[in-house]
Amino acid sequence: MSTSPQSWSSGAQRVPDQRVGTPGEPVLAGLGTSSAAGDARSGGGGAAERHPHRTAPDRLPTRPSLLELVFDHIHSEWAMEIIRGVEQVLSAEQAALVLSELGGDHRPRDDWFDDLLDRRPLGVVLVVVELGDGQRRRLTAAGIPFVFVDPAEEQPPGVPVVGSANRVGGEAATRHLVELGHRRIAVISGPMRLPCSRARVEGFRGALAAGGLSAAPDHVRYGEFRATSGYRHGLELLGRPDRPTAVFAGSDYQALGVMRAAHELGLSVPDDLSVVGYDDLSINEWSGPPLTTVRQPLRDMGAVAARMAITLARGQRPPHERIDLATELVVRQSTAPPRHP
Amino acid sequence: MSTSPQSWSSGAQRVPDQRVGTPGEPVLAGLGTSSAAGDARSGGGGAAERHPHRTAPDRLPTRPSLLELVFDHIHSEWAMEIIRGVEQVLSAEQAALVLSELGGDHRPRDDWFDDLLDRRPLGVVLVVVELGDGQRRRLTAAGIPFVFVDPAEEQPPGVPVVGSANRVGGEAATRHLVELGHRRIAVISGPMRLPCSRARVEGFRGALAAGGLSAAPDHVRYGEFRATSGYRHGLELLGRPDRPTAVFAGSDYQALGVMRAAHELGLSVPDDLSVVGYDDLSINEWSGPPLTTVRQPLRDMGAVAARMAITLARGQRPPHERIDLATELVVRQSTAPPRHP
Repeated sequence: MSTSPQSWSSGAQRVPDQRVGTPGEPVLAGLGTSSAAGDARSGGGGAAERHPHRTAPDRLPTRPSLLELVFDHIHSEWAMEIIRGVEQVLSAEQAALVLSELGGDHRPRDDWFDDLLDRRPLGVVLVVVELGDGQRRRLTAAGIPFVFVDPAEEQPPGVPVVGSANRVGGEAATRHLVELGHRRIAVISGPMRLPCSRARVEGFRGALAAGGLSAAPDHVRYGEFRATSGYRHGLELLGRPDRPTAVFAGSDYQALGVMRAAHELGLSVPDDLSVVGYDDLSINEWSGPPLTTVRQPLRDMGAVAARMAITLARGQRPPHERIDLATELVVRQSTAPPRHP
Repeated sequence: MSTSPQSWSSGAQRVPDQRVGTPGEPVLAGLGTSSAAGDARSGGGGAAERHPHRTAPDRLPTRPSLLELVFDHIHSEWAMEIIRGVEQVLSAEQAALVLSELGGDHRPRDDWFDDLLDRRPLGVVLVVVELGDGQRRRLTAAGIPFVFVDPAEEQPPGVPVVGSANRVGGEAATRHLVELGHRRIAVISGPMRLPCSRARVEGFRGALAAGGLSAAPDHVRYGEFRATSGYRHGLELLGRPDRPTAVFAGSDYQALGVMRAAHELGLSVPDDLSVVGYDDLSINEWSGPPLTTVRQPLRDMGAVAARMAITLARGQRPPHERIDLATELVVRQSTAPPRHP
């Protein structure tokens, strides 16, 4: 059933039931394909009958091939980039994207989860989301693989996770500021409960330590990824005599909020304050000054997670269980040497 | 079958087949419900059996209740707002959102359309999209209602359309600039082929005429809704001696591009150039100077379209076939009286 020389743990159960062929027969590899059993379930007047050009063996229509993409909260270009990455993979596979948000919660409600199971998706990609043990068991029992992107809590070994090199990103941003000559550097990360937020702060501390520096306790902050959070923390950090000369923000939106706070306090960027963002969203190019930031390959993260879910749905083992895609510092005009180091 | 005193044209055919009850019996009204026939089709070990708490008459699981949301192109917070409006309606209805983009095309390819029909959605919401005659006929024959949001071409009477008051929005933006004392005002709209783009230019011309003004031919432009387009047109418009003192842009992103062009040419906003955007995306609050813009209720537009599709899927007539939601001028800091009128 699997073309992989090694068997994926509980791989057979991970094949969605509508894709399982007769034992001993190969499973049709393409998405949007089906076994005869699947077709029989689809009711009278099947699509193959209506569209005779689609009756080739690899084109027998069946139940819809759905991949579920679940966000805690859909906001900003950040989510859009992940969505587009998933969409591009699915449209090439003739599968459809079911998009949900949990209204800001990180864990699905059980009644919502019932609906998801009823849809019998080929797989689930969860973004900044966590699952309860019962929810994991139900997905596994239903043969529905799940892949986390930036999970809302640490995942045990064997659970597929796609992320980016958050620690390395935090290090690169902070090292850049240290190399410019900054000594009082603050970080505003995302929510403390998220592993990606904590990893960036670890990178921040590591780069400071490598430069023989450490951060004042009040200069290490956790907030939300939105502009308002950067604005609020920015006002607090920058309104004091011992204000930092540089801030490493948890997102580009947060960085915009920090820059607004600086502007209101009469500080100019980058002369009085250097700001580094995170994500590298396209809005950076247009909301001046152009932002120095850490690029996350969000679209690729979505695409890799979608491909991983599809591979698992085929009963195959993906090349890697955990993938952290590279991050990259992009230096633009919001950082400069400090005027008064 | 319908609770409406008037019968909707071909209303009966618009009920998706999986929702039709035995003739003479009432159709269960809620989404996420089914007839017994629908349940039988769903194969062995139905969800009702697995989740006994969901066996109430209005909770019998069935084929998934899917609503298709189709964009020409998913980009920016603009699309995100529409998606969130649809999502909020669907999550209250226990229906799921299938999201697609046509890779920039306005009309679906027929093979993609086959896949959509195979999914048997309860309805389709099309954003900046058009349908061929054959595609319309196939949806109607399959009992799948469709609703356009900002359609890519004019729709004949009887076709449900949700938009916003583009002409009024264009008028309000331009009147504001005329009242500030501007005489040389340019417009950069969206693509000329889109009715919403043309309606805004009509409003622009109407407000100029009401002020006893007219636009130089070169000051009426059609572009794309992206920042790059505003930047390109901005450089052309502002690099000439007879440059406009105010620009009404087709989107907030376009306005950011115009402001970047002004900045590069040494013109300050709003002292040397007033700029009005369109949409009122949240990014406006944070990318300075805060943008005067025309607010479109994008989230509401998505929500209204989703509700309309659901109403039609139930065989009921929606209160209105065409809804243009109100637009509103929001005056911020990117507009001021001209220094040299």
